[in-house]
Amino acid sequence: MSFFFLNLVKNIVMADYVDMKTLKFLLKEVYDANKLTKYDKFKEYDVESFEMLLDSTKSFSDKFLKPFYKEMDTNPAHYKNGKIIVHPSVEKVMRNAGENGSIGSIFSYDDGGMQLPLLIHQANGFIAGAANNGAIGYPGLTSGAAHLIVTFGNDELKKRFTPKMISGDWGGTMCLTEPQAGSSLSDIITSAKKLSDGSYSIKGDKIFISGGDHDYCDNFVHLVLARIDGAPKGTKGISLFAVPKNNIDENHNVTDSNNVTTIGDFQKLGEKGFCTTHLAFGEKGVCKGWLVGTENKGLSHMFQMMNSARIDVGMKGASLSTAAYLSSLEYAKERPQGRRISSSGNKNIESDQVNIIEHPDVRRMLLFQECISQGSLALLLQCSLYYDLSKVESDEKKEKYHDLLEILTPIAKTYPAEKGLESISNGLQVLGGYGFCTDYDLEQYYRDIRIMSIYEGTTGIQSLDLMGRKIIMKNGESFKFLINEFKETIEKASTYEELKPYANTFKNYSKDLSDTIMELIQIAIKGDHERYISDATIFMEYMSNVVIAWQWLKISACAKEKIINGADDHLTSFYEKKIHAMKFYFKYELTRNKGIKEILLHPDSLTIPNKEKKIFI
Amino acid sequence: MSFFFLNLVKNIVMADYVDMKTLKFLLKEVYDANKLTKYDKFKEYDVESFEMLLDSTKSFSDKFLKPFYKEMDTNPAHYKNGKIIVHPSVEKVMRNAGENGSIGSIFSYDDGGMQLPLLIHQANGFIAGAANNGAIGYPGLTSGAAHLIVTFGNDELKKRFTPKMISGDWGGTMCLTEPQAGSSLSDIITSAKKLSDGSYSIKGDKIFISGGDHDYCDNFVHLVLARIDGAPKGTKGISLFAVPKNNIDENHNVTDSNNVTTIGDFQKLGEKGFCTTHLAFGEKGVCKGWLVGTENKGLSHMFQMMNSARIDVGMKGASLSTAAYLSSLEYAKERPQGRRISSSGNKNIESDQVNIIEHPDVRRMLLFQECISQGSLALLLQCSLYYDLSKVESDEKKEKYHDLLEILTPIAKTYPAEKGLESISNGLQVLGGYGFCTDYDLEQYYRDIRIMSIYEGTTGIQSLDLMGRKIIMKNGESFKFLINEFKETIEKASTYEELKPYANTFKNYSKDLSDTIMELIQIAIKGDHERYISDATIFMEYMSNVVIAWQWLKISACAKEKIINGADDHLTSFYEKKIHAMKFYFKYELTRNKGIKEILLHPDSLTIPNKEKKIFI
Repeated sequence: MSFFFLNLVKNIVMADYVDMKTLKFLLKEVYDANKLTKYDKFKEYDVESFEMLLDSTKSFSDKFLKPFYKEMDTNPAHYKNGKIIVHPSVEKVMRNAGENGSIGSIFSYDDGGMQLPLLIHQANGFIAGAANNGAIGYPGLTSGAAHLIVTFGNDELKKRFTPKMISGDWGGTMCLTEPQAGSSLSDIITSAKKLSDGSYSIKGDKIFISGGDHDYCDNFVHLVLARIDGAPKGTKGISLFAVPKNNIDENHNVTDSNNVTTIGDFQKLGEKGFCTTHLAFGEKGVCKGWLVGTENKGLSHMFQMMNSARIDVGMKGASLSTAAYLSSLEYAKERPQGRRISSSGNKNIESDQVNIIEHPDVRRMLLFQECISQGSLALLLQCSLYYDLSKVESDEKKEKYHDLLEILTPIAKTYPAEKGLESISNGLQVLGGYGFCTDYDLEQYYRDIRIMSIYEGTTGIQSLDLMGRKIIMKNGESFKFLINEFKETIEKASTYEELKPYANTFKNYSKDLSDTIMELIQIAIKGDHERYISDATIFMEYMSNVVIAWQWLKISACAKEKIINGADDHLTSFYEKKIHAMKFYFKYELTRNKGIKEILLHPDSLTIPNKEKKIFI
Repeated sequence: MSFFFLNLVKNIVMADYVDMKTLKFLLKEVYDANKLTKYDKFKEYDVESFEMLLDSTKSFSDKFLKPFYKEMDTNPAHYKNGKIIVHPSVEKVMRNAGENGSIGSIFSYDDGGMQLPLLIHQANGFIAGAANNGAIGYPGLTSGAAHLIVTFGNDELKKRFTPKMISGDWGGTMCLTEPQAGSSLSDIITSAKKLSDGSYSIKGDKIFISGGDHDYCDNFVHLVLARIDGAPKGTKGISLFAVPKNNIDENHNVTDSNNVTTIGDFQKLGEKGFCTTHLAFGEKGVCKGWLVGTENKGLSHMFQMMNSARIDVGMKGASLSTAAYLSSLEYAKERPQGRRISSSGNKNIESDQVNIIEHPDVRRMLLFQECISQGSLALLLQCSLYYDLSKVESDEKKEKYHDLLEILTPIAKTYPAEKGLESISNGLQVLGGYGFCTDYDLEQYYRDIRIMSIYEGTTGIQSLDLMGRKIIMKNGESFKFLINEFKETIEKASTYEELKPYANTFKNYSKDLSDTIMELIQIAIKGDHERYISDATIFMEYMSNVVIAWQWLKISACAKEKIINGADDHLTSFYEKKIHAMKFYFKYELTRNKGIKEILLHPDSLTIPNKEKKIFI
């Protein structure tokens, strides 16, 4: 390869994967993380300690996550002789996550945790995920599984399982999917038979178990959905069990196998370093599980983990699109090619080539990436803040924040996945042919992000949740809370002359959203629920555009305030960029809702199988 | 793996990759391939012989292309000791392409070709590309390179190079890109110095050379852009040369090396079996090239090949999205999961699970894929037909068809690539977690199609071509021809009661397109060319939606005519599906233009670097 080419590769490798300045701006200025430290629960922290945590995550990611990003991809996790072989850096990642407390970071002090706000925990996850989204899945799922036990398990279970999970010595997983049921959890058949010692004998197959097995943990605790013999059909007969891979004695030492057999590892398009296993419980002998929480309430318990896992997945989307954005931005700033078109429409071939960032179409792709990646991050931090407030606020406000989190979660999971993919594809496009080559990370980002719209409930399922449950729950109470949040932002933005027209535009699009919902709900009221829900995914796209526009307006209002209150030139330019990005989002994305609304209100019903069973496909 | 899982895999592998019935319907009924045989040039053919050719391509593809699709991906082409190692099936593919005449299929009989209409040649390419898009690149580029020589080369050059290319013994390539220039061809620096024997000494580096080297051809003929010493700067000083890898004697036997050195092979996201080489000309000694056509006219000669290569790339997009569609359709028909939502909004868990094709959201994804893949195919066949008519019609009509081809080529290249990707991503989504696994072809389609918006001029470049040249060329003459074609279709569709409202809707959107163009052109007339062109890619999206809607309306009118003229139940159902797909396209895609128009006419200019050099990124 020519020197020139190598030089380009070298440059791009040096691009940073995360924009700490924007992250801290969002945390400190837009969402005012400081105010959380006024609450008793978080009183041990202050803004400086938050910042130190973020910086230390960045250092760790620089050293132990980013360097193995490509290596974990080119040496995928795989099945060999009954074992899953993963990249050795997984050991370091698990150990460090235990040592720095991140596995139990949001758990209470009593439960062995750091009692950190989710806002900061997610910000840390954002950084680490941008460095190596696959690797952080291992401690991430362990954290989620342990969190389920500390929330719903009794003291004995907590004592038995969680200390070694929080320390990173043991891994944790969530085992929902079965081959014959897929997303249809009412159809799972894994069985649980009560034994004389109070535990249950678990028997069944689980697939797509992320982080399900490897050699760098002494043990695994699987959180398994199963049916106790005689339980009701459907989702109302599902219970939750903690099922260790190996049996242990009272000192947490592994004794013998608990008959959880590793059957295989799915080979995938992306996140290749993060194993996706097929496990069989009780196939080779008795496999003991312990009931977590209440009999037949397993699914609702699991949903606690699912909800937080959905935020995690959304954040991975935001991480990946951010890393891709910064990578293509760096390239565009340094790659000379072509010339600008003059006002007369000609190009001056006597002049030097310009860097491609000067070309409007390249800038459009970069601004698009900026809007998607930062808009996604903003929404996820907003959700995390609502989560924290729902834990520490007075009862009445608690409910409000909880409901806001509920209605926004499907969007916060889906938008960063779906739009993030489009964003990364634009990033790849900025590099042209090089973007398609493995010398750059773009193609890996493009592969990795594709799973985010499948993990933890597909986009279709999130959309059914949004339109079929969240929008209408409590007579639309959550939606009303959201509209009130919109109003607050509109009011604040309207106080600035430059932002007023955009606040007004946003108001119109948000009114359109409300009107469209009211019109669609009529279909459900008239009794045609299937029709009401049939375009839920289109509705998701429609509502997401408004929600992200809201975040951008909020960011702009904050940025404008800082400029007016006096910021130096450098900071002013930083804040002005945010306002510019908002304008870009409003022009290039929000306007699309004019067309999407037409789809939602279109009279033709074309996707529902008709009565004569004619399948028009 | 459980039996159930293997069973699913088995089923999906059996899904067909191409819908011959739809292809033949388009060729015979919508575009009336038969009428081509009335022209002298094609008089040796009839519809039956066309059909036989298609069927034989299908048989060959079944046997020798599809079975190696995944294998060529898992054993990528790569560089080793100065050579490129490719999959052994490349030998069979080249030999067969030579034997069945497909490399020279559209060449005249005099030039050793089959004098086949491009319409049929492209239909064959569609089938083969759906089976194995990477493999057919080898004969495809050989054909394109040979076509350049037969079109612009003198008799001596033709005799020297083309027979062995047409027979598949030698490969051919196009060498444009250089490391420092990328898409900016005015900046290429490969040099050509005239030698005493009339040939030229070529010196320079070329990258991204598809099919540039392997062991299964005895020789390669590279079509290289270079500057003759003293030539003008920019694109006006570029000439075209035929540069063999090895020197030959008068009997076409290889004698010695012509000093074309293979430097490396780019490792890629997709099309891994199709090598992408880095070649150095004249690095190790004199490398001789022969001028093809006129000095300094190389770029315009090359554009003949580029234009047809653009149609080829569009067709690969249509092929891949078709194969993906059929694969996910098959899966959806056989995969049971979940239950339909009843009118009351509940699900009956006592009933069996339904196949997922019953779920509206899955049907939406499938119909979307049908619309994109078949709409793309239709447009590409339409373009091929215009090409053929531009060769055989009277002079006046020739120009019309040529202009129609000119204005549609950037769309026919871009739409199947950009929307095809979205379509395949929907296909992957239909399979859920399985779609992300390498057991199915979906993930490979998703990777392979990503290059189509980069090959032969990126989407950005196609869009500049559309908006900056094609729309305004000859005072908008081409666009007027297109509007007339629209009118013809509107008139025909309006004669059917069922289609009338859609014809009317289309009329409105097509008027919107004309109005928007008129409004945008004012910006150029006022002298701001950079602004006029700055959203060319958005304009591409906008115009493409109308063009594909036109194709669907045309297809529907033809289908409706067949139904009314009396078709049996089975055929009626086939035709009704086409009309249903048209309706789907109008509701879910065409409507989006309402929002896209707002972007194009939005007053904010946000992507042009402003005068103070503030870069708002």
